[in-house]
Formats: sequence, structure tokens, C-alpha cells
Amino acid sequence: MRQATELLHVKTHGRGLVEFTRQAGDWARGQGMQTGLLTLFCRHTSASLLIQENADPDVQRDLEAYFETIAPEDPGRYVHDTEGPDDMPAHIRTALTQTQLSIPLIRGELMLGTWQGTYLFEHRRQVALHLIGE
Amino acid sequence: MRQATELLHVKTHGRGLVEFTRQAGDWARGQGMQTGLLTLFCRHTSASLLIQENADPDVQRDLEAYFETIAPEDPGRYVHDTEGPDDMPAHIRTALTQTQLSIPLIRGELMLGTWQGTYLFEHRRQVALHLIGE
Amino acid sequence: MRQATELLHVKTHGRGLVEFTRQAGDWARGQGMQTGLLTLFCRHTSASLLIQENADPDVQRDLEAYFETIAPEDPGRYVHDTEGPDDMPAHIRTALTQTQLSIPLIRGELMLGTWQGTYLFEHRRQVALHLIGE
Repeated sequence: MRQATELLHVKTHGRGLVEFTRQAGDWARGQGMQTGLLTLFCRHTSASLLIQENADPDVQRDLEAYFETIAPEDPGRYVHDTEGPDDMPAHIRTALTQTQLSIPLIRGELMLGTWQGTYLFEHRRQVALHLIGE
Repeated sequence: MRQATELLHVKTHGRGLVEFTRQAGDWARGQGMQTGLLTLFCRHTSASLLIQENADPDVQRDLEAYFETIAPEDPGRYVHDTEGPDDMPAHIRTALTQTQLSIPLIRGELMLGTWQGTYLFEHRRQVALHLIGE
Repeated sequence: MRQATELLHVKTHGRGLVEFTRQAGDWARGQGMQTGLLTLFCRHTSASLLIQENADPDVQRDLEAYFETIAPEDPGRYVHDTEGPDDMPAHIRTALTQTQLSIPLIRGELMLGTWQGTYLFEHRRQVALHLIGE
């Protein structure tokens, strides 16, 4: 049994969902393990992780619109505004989604379903990767 | 230290929460480990995982009703409708809950609290199990 | 490779976010590992875990206010009320946030970002810790 770790930089262009399934998967496969557990950890409080459908881009657009509706940018609604009007909505969206995801590796393949992709939600962000297995 | 993996099929009957605490627990205990970490991973984008109270079934009904309220089925609200009017609400509910859960195993027992059960939220679904420990 | 486990008692004062970054970090560092994965697991269904900003306390206040808005205490709204009017809102807030968090340990340091703290959301609660690594 052994471990491998990496810091992955995911480049984004303003708000929204950015898929990094291939980056994470390529790195994991490159470690040459057959069985294991890959953990993705987002090192920020105004960005988060999601596993979602990567077939129809409309799903991403609907998700982004949904989170803008339930956690809107709205001066006066939040006390915390020292980091800008988009900071508190970003914290709330982070709380409602995930900071960390672990994906089993079985027979050399990550157990993502056919339509599942890993996404970073917002901004330029750093994701820590940890793989344990053999 | 060793690992064990399994693909678990959880049968559901339409929408709602289906408990599979016993299925996951029986499998984990069957691996004969004393200390470890059990990871449950849902391989779908329109179903998710939850740990919730398994004492009063009203909790499950209230949870289902709540998610129907905040992520309703509503033609016209979402762009993505090629897979049916219930698909985008399912993606949103998945984003708001969990795709993966890891539960520590200590002295041969999963560390679920007295009233905690593991639930699959919606449809017929496959859950990948990964256990590492000794 | 080895494992270490602990049951951590986090004392809270009524509702709200309670940071326990130092408690968890001190315990993890005390195990003397360089590389690993720390898992935090909340053993309750009316409390949850969050990783959030620990710089400006207003963030915590805004988060608490937000969850009171989207999952209000409101007799008549929920069927389940045998454990008090604050129980079903607590279950919903738990469903919307996290029961478990895993944090990679790299070069002896937990990979929390500069402003990230680990929080328990509500009540007096027990958190199970599991660390695997070497």
C-alpha cells in the first residue's frame, strides 16, 4: 500500500462550473495503482467541488442559474461584504455543495459513472489530490 | 493494511429515500476488519447519498417534500429538458446533497450514530463501496 | 502505513457554527504522520460539518441567518415534530451541508487553505476522527 499526492491548479474564467475530470483522472491513472481511493479537496472557501452530468452543457447552465437564484448577489442581504458583494454568495454556495470528494479506484478505473464529471465551481483554484492504494 | 471493493445495487421504487444501512454494513463487517474507512460512492448524477435519521419515517417524508419545494419539477424553469422534466430537479438535488460518504470503522463497528442511517435518494442506482483498513 | 482513530467531543452553546480546526489539527499532527488522509465524521443527524472562512466572524453569522431562512423553524410546515420544532429544520440543514469531510495530509500539514476552518454546525456533538497514512 502506498500514497501519492499532488496540487492541481484548475484555471477558470470568472464564475461557473469548470470540468477537470481528465486532469484528475490522468494524474490518478499515472500512479499505476489498481485499487485505491482518490480524494479531491478544494483549498478555498468561495469555490467548491461537484460531481455532475458532463453530457449536456445545459445542465451546467441550469445549475449556475439555480445557485444564483437561491444564493443571490444582493448588497444589504449579508453583513459580510468586506471582500466584495460576490464573496458571501460564494461562501453560501460552497456550504451547499462540496469541499471534498473521494472516488474509489477499482481494477485501475475511477468509479465515476458514464455521465459523471468532476467540476470546480468558480474562480482560479487549487485542488489537493490524495491517492491511497496499491 | 488491505482493501476490499464492491458494487452494490440498491433497488428503489420511484422517487424518495431508500435506506441501505444494513446492506452496506453487512458487507463491511463481512470483510473482517477492525479499523478502517468505508467509502460509499453513488455512480449517478440524478441520485445522491444522505445520512439521516432512521427512527421516524416522517423525517424522510419531510425531506422529500422539502427538496420538491426548493428544486421543483417545473417545465420552463430549466433549459435542460431533453431527459424529461424530472431530470434537472434531480441534478440540483444531487448537487445540494452528497455523491460520496466515508464512514470510519473503529473496533469493528461503523461509526454511525444511534439514529443515523445511510440513504440513497431516488431511482434504481449503483453504489461503489471501498473499504481500506486492517 | 497505519491508522489512528479518536472520538472528539465538540462543545457548543446552542445553535450556530463552532470552529474545531485546532482540536482536529492538533490531534492529527500528534500522530506523527507525514502523508495521509484525515476523515471527520459527525455522528448526529441534527448537526453537520462545514469547511468555511475563519477570518471574518460575519461570514458565520451570515451563514447561520441564511440557513434559518431556507430551512426555517415553522410549526405546521413539517410532519415530523415529535422531537421539537427545531428538529426537522436541523435535519434539513444537515442534508444540505456535510456529515463527513476528508482532508489530505501532505508533508506533515493538513491541506486546509489559508482561510479554511472546520466547523461543527449546532449543539453538543461527537465527531469521529480517522487518520490513515505513514
